[in-house]
Amino acid sequence: MALVVQKFGGTSVGNLERIYAIAKRIAIKHREGLDLVIVVSAMGDTTDELINMAYQIHPNPPSREIDMLLSTGEQVSIALLAIALDRLGIAAISMTGTQVGILTEATHGQARILKIQTERILKHLEQDQVVIVAGFQGTTQSSNGFPEITTLGRGGSDTSAVAIAAALNADACEIYTDVIGILTTDPRAVETAQLIKTISCDEMLELASLGAAVLHPRAVEIARNYGVLLSVRSSWTLSPGTSLVGGYAKHMNNEGLEIGKSVDSAKLIENQAIVRICHLPDIVGITATLFEGLASANVSIDLIAQVNNFNGTVTISFTLADQQLEKACSICRRILNSLKAKDATVIGEGEVSKLSISGVGITSRYGTLARLFEVLAKNNINLRAIATSEVKVSCLIQNKEASKALKAVLHAFELSNCQLYESSSLDDINGSKVKGVALDINQVQISILNVPNHSIVLATICRGLADAFIPIGSMVQLEYRIRSSSLYSRDIILTLYQDDRIKARGILTELLSPWPGVRLEEGSTISRVSAVGVGIRNTPGVAAKMFRSLSIAGINIQMIATSEIRTSCMVDESDGLDALQAVHSCFELGQIT
Amino acid sequence: MALVVQKFGGTSVGNLERIYAIAKRIAIKHREGLDLVIVVSAMGDTTDELINMAYQIHPNPPSREIDMLLSTGEQVSIALLAIALDRLGIAAISMTGTQVGILTEATHGQARILKIQTERILKHLEQDQVVIVAGFQGTTQSSNGFPEITTLGRGGSDTSAVAIAAALNADACEIYTDVIGILTTDPRAVETAQLIKTISCDEMLELASLGAAVLHPRAVEIARNYGVLLSVRSSWTLSPGTSLVGGYAKHMNNEGLEIGKSVDSAKLIENQAIVRICHLPDIVGITATLFEGLASANVSIDLIAQVNNFNGTVTISFTLADQQLEKACSICRRILNSLKAKDATVIGEGEVSKLSISGVGITSRYGTLARLFEVLAKNNINLRAIATSEVKVSCLIQNKEASKALKAVLHAFELSNCQLYESSSLDDINGSKVKGVALDINQVQISILNVPNHSIVLATICRGLADAFIPIGSMVQLEYRIRSSSLYSRDIILTLYQDDRIKARGILTELLSPWPGVRLEEGSTISRVSAVGVGIRNTPGVAAKMFRSLSIAGINIQMIATSEIRTSCMVDESDGLDALQAVHSCFELGQIT
Repeated sequence: MALVVQKFGGTSVGNLERIYAIAKRIAIKHREGLDLVIVVSAMGDTTDELINMAYQIHPNPPSREIDMLLSTGEQVSIALLAIALDRLGIAAISMTGTQVGILTEATHGQARILKIQTERILKHLEQDQVVIVAGFQGTTQSSNGFPEITTLGRGGSDTSAVAIAAALNADACEIYTDVIGILTTDPRAVETAQLIKTISCDEMLELASLGAAVLHPRAVEIARNYGVLLSVRSSWTLSPGTSLVGGYAKHMNNEGLEIGKSVDSAKLIENQAIVRICHLPDIVGITATLFEGLASANVSIDLIAQVNNFNGTVTISFTLADQQLEKACSICRRILNSLKAKDATVIGEGEVSKLSISGVGITSRYGTLARLFEVLAKNNINLRAIATSEVKVSCLIQNKEASKALKAVLHAFELSNCQLYESSSLDDINGSKVKGVALDINQVQISILNVPNHSIVLATICRGLADAFIPIGSMVQLEYRIRSSSLYSRDIILTLYQDDRIKARGILTELLSPWPGVRLEEGSTISRVSAVGVGIRNTPGVAAKMFRSLSIAGINIQMIATSEIRTSCMVDESDGLDALQAVHSCFELGQIT
Repeated sequence: MALVVQKFGGTSVGNLERIYAIAKRIAIKHREGLDLVIVVSAMGDTTDELINMAYQIHPNPPSREIDMLLSTGEQVSIALLAIALDRLGIAAISMTGTQVGILTEATHGQARILKIQTERILKHLEQDQVVIVAGFQGTTQSSNGFPEITTLGRGGSDTSAVAIAAALNADACEIYTDVIGILTTDPRAVETAQLIKTISCDEMLELASLGAAVLHPRAVEIARNYGVLLSVRSSWTLSPGTSLVGGYAKHMNNEGLEIGKSVDSAKLIENQAIVRICHLPDIVGITATLFEGLASANVSIDLIAQVNNFNGTVTISFTLADQQLEKACSICRRILNSLKAKDATVIGEGEVSKLSISGVGITSRYGTLARLFEVLAKNNINLRAIATSEVKVSCLIQNKEASKALKAVLHAFELSNCQLYESSSLDDINGSKVKGVALDINQVQISILNVPNHSIVLATICRGLADAFIPIGSMVQLEYRIRSSSLYSRDIILTLYQDDRIKARGILTELLSPWPGVRLEEGSTISRVSAVGVGIRNTPGVAAKMFRSLSIAGINIQMIATSEIRTSCMVDESDGLDALQAVHSCFELGQIT
């Protein structure tokens, strides 16, 4: 008999009528013969109301007591749902996180799941009962060895549901919500946003900010890591919603369910090249023109980095296969000539390799980036370019150092040779080039200029930010030859949340003091528009299309950062919404499929 | 350092301001150096609201899920109180019933406490933390061996607090509420009701209906059984409230905290006598006149039973010491003569003994009465009179059968010889004769007439009612000589809740069918007014004073039933409130002391 885990969010159990409606829905599925584990959130705004009560008493309430308080919300929901099912003649039993045995870290407020004990759930399923589990909560042992209630933090009920599905090896996990599924973009910003029928877990993670309101990235991470067949559906219709595919069906070990390795594979692609274009005039559309030119000549571009320098020029780097280097350089020079950008220089460098590591939360798990750069610095490997994203970070290194670098990275992240691969999921999932477009607002660009040619600086920066729990949005490294010189200058540009700006400034200023030549410059508040799709990399012209759409909308791109499946453009804060609409429209995502 | 358990009820934690106020109160005591365990109820009407939600979904919701639902109420309170204490700089930790280890029976909705694990509480007290425990809830193991949440039923938080105090051997247990303590009667009925400063646990149990709104009898039972120093106080004043004294300081064994023996002592008083007055005309005040006459001659009356027969006559029995029998009979005859009650007969019978058993909940614990009568019936011991109350049941038996009866009872209730005593607490506590007056409404009188002279009938009746969970209010047995005959007729009169009338009628009709001569008669709805005080028995004239006060108020007494420390008069339903006021006033309880 098929075992399905269904999760119903706070809106779906927002009042007694809805709980009863949900119960009826569950009853039908139970009568059809499904084994069901139901995970529910607290009713409606209960959690917010409880938090509000606590903060009325205390500006900084102890997190243990907040967990004690908040965990009641889900407990009310599970009991009422069990009562409703009993009313419908369905045997059901509710369980708290403690009763199930959802074992978490000993951290209150945002505990990660270590293990889910399945014995009790299975016992009740055997007895043909619908098992109703309180989402968002778990249990741990205090330092005294006594059991404590923990909560999982934002998106906790999604996380509970997918983790339970993984632990039970369920046939499916269905997240029911009050929207129809994951949309191509935020429908409040773009009216024509359409349902995404199928999306890979990696794509979903890259669209974190887009999907988070519907499906928390932690849940996607678990689905990806353990191959859970996950879907997002409406509680009030029978439409199939959005299916998430491309998980790894990894064997679950008995602990660390949610804190497994942040890096689960590495890959080396040799014979790559990098093209650097410096001193480009800051003309709207110049980037689009360049990449359109390259695309029309069938030059496949891999990673792109661009930044508008504070002196009014633009610097661009992009990578591609070594054998296309000459062709690319000449196309670029021709275009620049035609644009009369006489100061611009195009420099190609071949014989480089791309070393990538993949895993969930590469940038959101503080320290993973730092760890990578530390390992490379320790081995005296210099980076010619970098590209970061939620699930992947890539470094360009010289061919002659590639093998040493790969070996060091495999060792550092405890990867065996069999983990030296790239998931097929990135490439094989249907043909749609761009799946969705996300807008991240309240970002700020920090430029670290004139950085010495050693990975230790990058490692230092990432470690400092990780230790302060400051997440890095995008990060690129750009090199350019100093005019009338054979020396290179190197800039690192990263984006952070606006809220972290002051804290980050202090940390970076102190960390960079050993290198007196290095300068820090901060830009104004920006928005990041990201187009995501596994087909982006293999389809020449996708990036160019995106750049052109912004150019047509009169929007200046202040920075570009790409990874294999994501292309992000930073634009002025006030341009964010227009940029989102322009990009969504250029990929024809608003059209009913 | 003194260890005090404090319990705050739902009104005391009814909103955030009150929780903060309570926290301040606790903080002061903590700073004074007390070790504190705080037990709290759910906020205000939370429990009712949760129950209401469940019943909106289901007319008969599963009790396991109700416990799951209701236990959240207290969990919210403990968390908020812990947060408030933290705000005041006091280290505090909240704990659910499960976390403490309040182990209960595997019964949902009204589980009794079996054991309280003290390890975790003591650990946190050692760390100078205020320990906050969720009242009303416990934990048990399901039939599958998995942990379950239970609730303790009405008065559960009081029960939790006193049980924790008993388990910790605390120096005191303080029940904080929104009234100033236990009053001499219900202040809504009698404006002049005054605070009772000190009361014994036994008296409190006899006043069950009076005190229940303030302090649940189960809590009093635990205090009595384990010698907990219990007090009831106002949450909003510093007045000392009411102190409960006279507990037994019994050694706590490791299980069955709340389900210990219902009988903990037995006592035999030999050389007693019984006086029966039959065919007395039903004249208002006649009972008062009789007992006033006896009191003024210093005849100490022990137990009194009276019933108004359906034929318009009154039958009275009373017991006293054998050596006063002759004197009592002649006084009664003289009074009856002066009243021209020429049909009335006064028959004295000496050489009887009074066998009593004591323990908590004698009448409320279904089956204890039945057990007693079964044992006596099995040993062919006939009862000349019976008197029941909450904490005691007494039987009058012939002297020659006394020793055999005592032996059988000690064996049946597993009492050793050292439990053959009467607690000093009944006698020694200050001089006040009457402590309080309680009114029980919605009672009904059931008369079982012409009962054969064998205890088996009594045993059968009590077992039948116990098996149907029908509590017996008062029960008396009256014998009278059939006119112009040497034969005795015997009636058993009991009071029940009006709600149980139809069920009881069916049960009794069937049970009594083996004795075709026995008749069942039901009276109208009545009220019971009870005066309670340990001094009643030793003070001649207390009962007479009560009867006279009712007579003066023009209230006809339909039935009288006494035990050692309680005198109850059944009156017409419509007279209940007047009777309460008259009795309260006659004992001068409304005067400020």
